[in-house]
Amino acid sequence: MTPYEIVRRKRDNAVLSRKEIFYFIDAYMQGQIKDYQMSAFLMAVFFRGLNEKETLLLTEAYLNSGKRINLDDLPGRKIDKHSTGGVGDKVSIILAPLVASLGIRVPMISGRGLGHTGGTLDKLESIPGFNVTGSVHKFKKQMKQIGVAMFGQSESLVPADRRIYALRDVTATVDSIPLITASIMSKKLAAGIDGLVLDVKVGNGSFIPNLSRAMKLAQSLIGVGHAFGKKVTAYLTSMEQPLGYKIGNWLEIEECLECLRGGGPQDLITLTVELSSEMMVLAGLEKNQQNAQKKCYQALKEGKALEKFLELVEFQEGNVEVLLQPEKVKPARFRKKVVSLQQGYISYIDTYRLGVGSVLLGAGRFHARSKVDPLAGIILRKKLGDPVKKDEPIMELHSSKETALQDAEGHLQGAFKIQSNRVQTPQLIRKRLV
Amino acid sequence: MTPYEIVRRKRDNAVLSRKEIFYFIDAYMQGQIKDYQMSAFLMAVFFRGLNEKETLLLTEAYLNSGKRINLDDLPGRKIDKHSTGGVGDKVSIILAPLVASLGIRVPMISGRGLGHTGGTLDKLESIPGFNVTGSVHKFKKQMKQIGVAMFGQSESLVPADRRIYALRDVTATVDSIPLITASIMSKKLAAGIDGLVLDVKVGNGSFIPNLSRAMKLAQSLIGVGHAFGKKVTAYLTSMEQPLGYKIGNWLEIEECLECLRGGGPQDLITLTVELSSEMMVLAGLEKNQQNAQKKCYQALKEGKALEKFLELVEFQEGNVEVLLQPEKVKPARFRKKVVSLQQGYISYIDTYRLGVGSVLLGAGRFHARSKVDPLAGIILRKKLGDPVKKDEPIMELHSSKETALQDAEGHLQGAFKIQSNRVQTPQLIRKRLV
Repeated sequence: MTPYEIVRRKRDNAVLSRKEIFYFIDAYMQGQIKDYQMSAFLMAVFFRGLNEKETLLLTEAYLNSGKRINLDDLPGRKIDKHSTGGVGDKVSIILAPLVASLGIRVPMISGRGLGHTGGTLDKLESIPGFNVTGSVHKFKKQMKQIGVAMFGQSESLVPADRRIYALRDVTATVDSIPLITASIMSKKLAAGIDGLVLDVKVGNGSFIPNLSRAMKLAQSLIGVGHAFGKKVTAYLTSMEQPLGYKIGNWLEIEECLECLRGGGPQDLITLTVELSSEMMVLAGLEKNQQNAQKKCYQALKEGKALEKFLELVEFQEGNVEVLLQPEKVKPARFRKKVVSLQQGYISYIDTYRLGVGSVLLGAGRFHARSKVDPLAGIILRKKLGDPVKKDEPIMELHSSKETALQDAEGHLQGAFKIQSNRVQTPQLIRKRLV
Repeated sequence: MTPYEIVRRKRDNAVLSRKEIFYFIDAYMQGQIKDYQMSAFLMAVFFRGLNEKETLLLTEAYLNSGKRINLDDLPGRKIDKHSTGGVGDKVSIILAPLVASLGIRVPMISGRGLGHTGGTLDKLESIPGFNVTGSVHKFKKQMKQIGVAMFGQSESLVPADRRIYALRDVTATVDSIPLITASIMSKKLAAGIDGLVLDVKVGNGSFIPNLSRAMKLAQSLIGVGHAFGKKVTAYLTSMEQPLGYKIGNWLEIEECLECLRGGGPQDLITLTVELSSEMMVLAGLEKNQQNAQKKCYQALKEGKALEKFLELVEFQEGNVEVLLQPEKVKPARFRKKVVSLQQGYISYIDTYRLGVGSVLLGAGRFHARSKVDPLAGIILRKKLGDPVKKDEPIMELHSSKETALQDAEGHLQGAFKIQSNRVQTPQLIRKRLV
């Protein structure tokens, strides 16, 4: 069994054994297998795939590379939610405190924005002082005391995924269902969950434009979760337009606060409550979704969710005062309205382009080490199906750099399509898989 | 245009442009593209292939990475021969001096054995003192004075191929027709040839077991040669058994000397004369193969070819005395006859296994840096179709290490199949393509 033989066997479509997969990951982590052999292997997996068992073994090998957080000594169910990433997807920031306020423990390990999608950590860090790092000890202490923690992936948590993800990112091997599955599930499992609700995004703003491929990914994720004895539900939800109206770090925190105060955009609230109530059912706290949904809406209306969010922010060293009076935060220095050139109805939104536009404005990053502008972003004035008059604003661009505003404006030309007839808007929640 | 984009585009089956291919090779040679991106690219090429134009561009980019030898100031045609590699394939060592003795200039850049096939350089080096290294200046001087040179690939000759070949060798990306094509043709073109005869081996002892794939490789090689304005002919020849009776470095030199003295095994002579006469026709020295073949047989019989060989050996610092009395060279210290366990006819020879067996005896190498035993090898006593009695020797193993002899003997069990009826032997020369 040599690294060469394992690459060759996967290249030739062989099914790899537990021994081979564990050896390949372990030897890579120990420096015996080099990056160039790993990247050839990853590309062979891109083309040949991994079967269900191999995917499970890869997830195990990833998990095996680092420490796992054990939360068994905490009472109550530990349930997490994971989204495959979209534009304006700020659900976690509302959902985590919401379900925590209802008794679920949420050990959430999040990521940063890369490419056209934003990242939960960047959004949280737009709250002055908010700290997403910390030891396992600190994480557990917080979980015990307030029932929710939103941290970044530490060095010791699934180091194999950290290194391999970085390599995939520069070798065009990210877009592979078994590799995505092992990456997501190893991190979730390492965080000590009992159950997981997955939000697999489908549409022009997601990584997966078509439904059948999204189904396959959802099934692959569920398969690994079940093999580990976890409760897993997957939703396929529309990413044919951004969630809510705001894209950008602080802008999205503002919108989350609206929701946590019982308001907020319809689509964002609907999806957040759907996923939250599914978590309630998975946790065994409610028998059916209807009751669970009622509880969720109540917690939002009564301010229980907001209270938990402020508790979370305080625990993670964020400035709570700012959140109590968000209207006092000055917007980005440079702002520009983009107006419609014709009258009609919004019939198509190029969501990917809006995501890239927000990165150009400074809200995200194309390279892993870039810094983000907390105030930059886009505020939509219109969404799919909305009527629009000539010269009426359809969006507003925000940035701390004047040149960025110009770059983004050029890039965003034609991101909205307008037609004279009213069009049907896409269904938000497309499928639920268990 | 980023390295990532180019890998992704090839992964997604795009046709790469001249700019992209040249950038990818140049940036790799300058260290801007890392091994891990190159190996992901190579694996993507393994799966997606390159079209005719991309293969040509890759060959050009390889060529562009180093110096080319210019032989234009030498009179006469410069024609080379290249074999894709087989077991006991010693044709070059007879052919090069033979055609040089008839007026062709042969600028031959050869390789070492790796895996189950032997290498011309290792065979030549079994002649005491024989030196396969030297500057371009020395190479040209020798080409001018005696019309033939047999050197190894220098550091400056197609460095892109040197580095990429080493990477392919450890990432299971050797077996790709466009990558093989660029590798072979860039080296041949860099050596300053006017024409080339290719010997593409087909069968259980070659890298390409089936005829249709060998045809594709031949056509790919011819296509690139023609695009560079070179005359190229490809032969597909059988590697269902070793060429001649001897496998191993000095053993093969002995067999070459038999041929250069007008004797030698039928198959080896037939193939050598066929390829040599094709070179004569390509060089314009003869109008048809029949006349060319007559000249070749004559040169062998009259000792002209041997004379040129001795001249070559002397020029490259080899000991000519040894070649004049090869029978004085003591054989390897440990020798063992392998006998037949039954009576019948040889119906199948596992040529690949004989190749690996000869490496185990010490005649070749599995790792690029291993040393070879000049005296080790196998002498066949029987070939396909030969009758054999029970307990009659079918081969003789030679090695300088006793343990190697035992290892090889175990490995070679069952390499010959014997059946009671006489069987048809495979055609030696299967196809000629222009």
